[in-house]
Amino acid sequence: MADHLLIRAAFRQPVERTPVWMMRQAGRFLPEYRAVREKADFLTMCKTPELAAEVSLQPLEAVDVDAVIFFSDILTMLEPMGLELTFGEGEGPRFPDPIRTSADIDRLSVVDPADGLAFVGDALHLCRERIAGRVPLLGFTGAPYTLATYAVEGCTGKNFNHIKRWYYREPETLRRLLEKIADQVTVYLNYQIENGAQAVQLFDTWAGALSPEDYREIAAPYTRQVIDGLHRDGVPVILYINGGGHHLDTMATLGADVLSLDWRTDMAEAKRKYGATHCLQGNLDPCALYGTEARIRQEVQRVLDAAGKVGHIFNLGHGMLPDIPVENARCFVRAVKELGVHG
Amino acid sequence: MADHLLIRAAFRQPVERTPVWMMRQAGRFLPEYRAVREKADFLTMCKTPELAAEVSLQPLEAVDVDAVIFFSDILTMLEPMGLELTFGEGEGPRFPDPIRTSADIDRLSVVDPADGLAFVGDALHLCRERIAGRVPLLGFTGAPYTLATYAVEGCTGKNFNHIKRWYYREPETLRRLLEKIADQVTVYLNYQIENGAQAVQLFDTWAGALSPEDYREIAAPYTRQVIDGLHRDGVPVILYINGGGHHLDTMATLGADVLSLDWRTDMAEAKRKYGATHCLQGNLDPCALYGTEARIRQEVQRVLDAAGKVGHIFNLGHGMLPDIPVENARCFVRAVKELGVHG
Repeated sequence: MADHLLIRAAFRQPVERTPVWMMRQAGRFLPEYRAVREKADFLTMCKTPELAAEVSLQPLEAVDVDAVIFFSDILTMLEPMGLELTFGEGEGPRFPDPIRTSADIDRLSVVDPADGLAFVGDALHLCRERIAGRVPLLGFTGAPYTLATYAVEGCTGKNFNHIKRWYYREPETLRRLLEKIADQVTVYLNYQIENGAQAVQLFDTWAGALSPEDYREIAAPYTRQVIDGLHRDGVPVILYINGGGHHLDTMATLGADVLSLDWRTDMAEAKRKYGATHCLQGNLDPCALYGTEARIRQEVQRVLDAAGKVGHIFNLGHGMLPDIPVENARCFVRAVKELGVHG
Repeated sequence: MADHLLIRAAFRQPVERTPVWMMRQAGRFLPEYRAVREKADFLTMCKTPELAAEVSLQPLEAVDVDAVIFFSDILTMLEPMGLELTFGEGEGPRFPDPIRTSADIDRLSVVDPADGLAFVGDALHLCRERIAGRVPLLGFTGAPYTLATYAVEGCTGKNFNHIKRWYYREPETLRRLLEKIADQVTVYLNYQIENGAQAVQLFDTWAGALSPEDYREIAAPYTRQVIDGLHRDGVPVILYINGGGHHLDTMATLGADVLSLDWRTDMAEAKRKYGATHCLQGNLDPCALYGTEARIRQEVQRVLDAAGKVGHIFNLGHGMLPDIPVENARCFVRAVKELGVHG
């Protein structure tokens, strides 16, 4: 189905309308999501294909987005490698036994996703079945540097002291961890593609905290390794770094089809610099959805004007916020669908 | 004393050596700071001129930096305006009664710092006396947008929901708050200058979370209002935004003498774009100080090469981290003093 709006836009082919979806669209802003979440904890939802598929489809029904992203977490794939993962109530992800030494790296292994992550394949199949061709299904995971950051810090760190100390004192050992994780990311994304993902997004959540030099040195090579290893016939690769505007020059060299911009990045400037080679995704400030209908439409128009008609997938510049009224999300999607029609 | 290295560098005059200091240099990484902190809570330290002066001078003695910044907090000045401020143990600043409505704005008033903030004037005088001309004394406060963010959110928010909702729904009311705060910032910094500050730095901590458009609209005008109102004969103004690389074009139009870069900003590129009109401050990743001595020297050399010999004040790209060994901080300052000598 290479003729979905989003897939064509990703390859910079002509589209009659700019496609739109929202990062974290299967989330707490939807009452029907909260209803499921009341009955099951976050990891149980990820690991139960029926529940994962149910919440994945909710934004398609509720908000009429142009893509479904399967419900999961960027960190899910680390667990079968040998890293126990917990999500306490009201706190972020936690690895009780983080990776801090060379010996810790040895205890991680690259596994066949069909063994440890079969629930993902099952969820993807269920999603495809229920979408029934209306929109494409997106797969995703964390990029190697971000996964390594979580594995090393053990939780969401403020300054990333542990991984950066490692990088500044013993970069070669850290590289061994990144290579191993990159191998797992590669087989995991290929598994998602084999099981129905029609585009894949790499989230490099923490790479924005790196200087441009350090990103080039310690993060970018492993993202490139992953992208080089994907069997992606007709499957576009989207690369997103929150707060990563200063990495775009490097991101543009890694083989991704789509550069996903956060809201702090100037879309018009990015279009000038990368529009001839890449589709751009983004980049409305999620907080703009707090606005009045008139303000939301004005902000949508501003992004559309900057991004142009070809090679743009409309999205928020970061994940959907839990306290946005559903009606405002609908207003946002409607605005893109009305204002983003190309003659 | 316009011939201090730092003051000359700030005005892009020739210097025989690049000056160096560290944001949050009077902080927990120093055992002598922790000793004082054990006896007094944070706000008591700020409000007791003897204690504030004592810890302000510590990094001069311990690490031999080229400037003293008086010990205080970017938020101190909001309290006499009518906003109670608390610092709980182990948590950040908190305003129990935040500003959320137009009526809340009415209850704030612009006050004479000689009344509500006399402890700052006293601390500055004590600092100048004890520095005895060795290095310049820096004053500082938060920039209006950041102060407004704290006042509205009530604490360090993750997504800045409240202030952004306000901005996207009722920008004109929010502007009234920003104007009032900008008036207070102006008189407060002038008060610091009258009482001995030889350079002043505006910290716009949270402005990095704004898109370029929103920064131009809702933050930059109030920073400009402050800078326009300063009596700054020979007193350079330094403007710092953490994660503000995407705002530099706008920051360069606000009248500051020095643009302070965080570590994610490319120093060489900033030098090319703004070096003819501005001194640049920064911008080593604070985490680089975890490194080996060889690595620290290599990183210092890299920044020196990018920044050139004129119009550069060496600094970290963000505040000093509490768990950096003092010896590493000394190694950093020594490296700048050795490698930053200009023939």
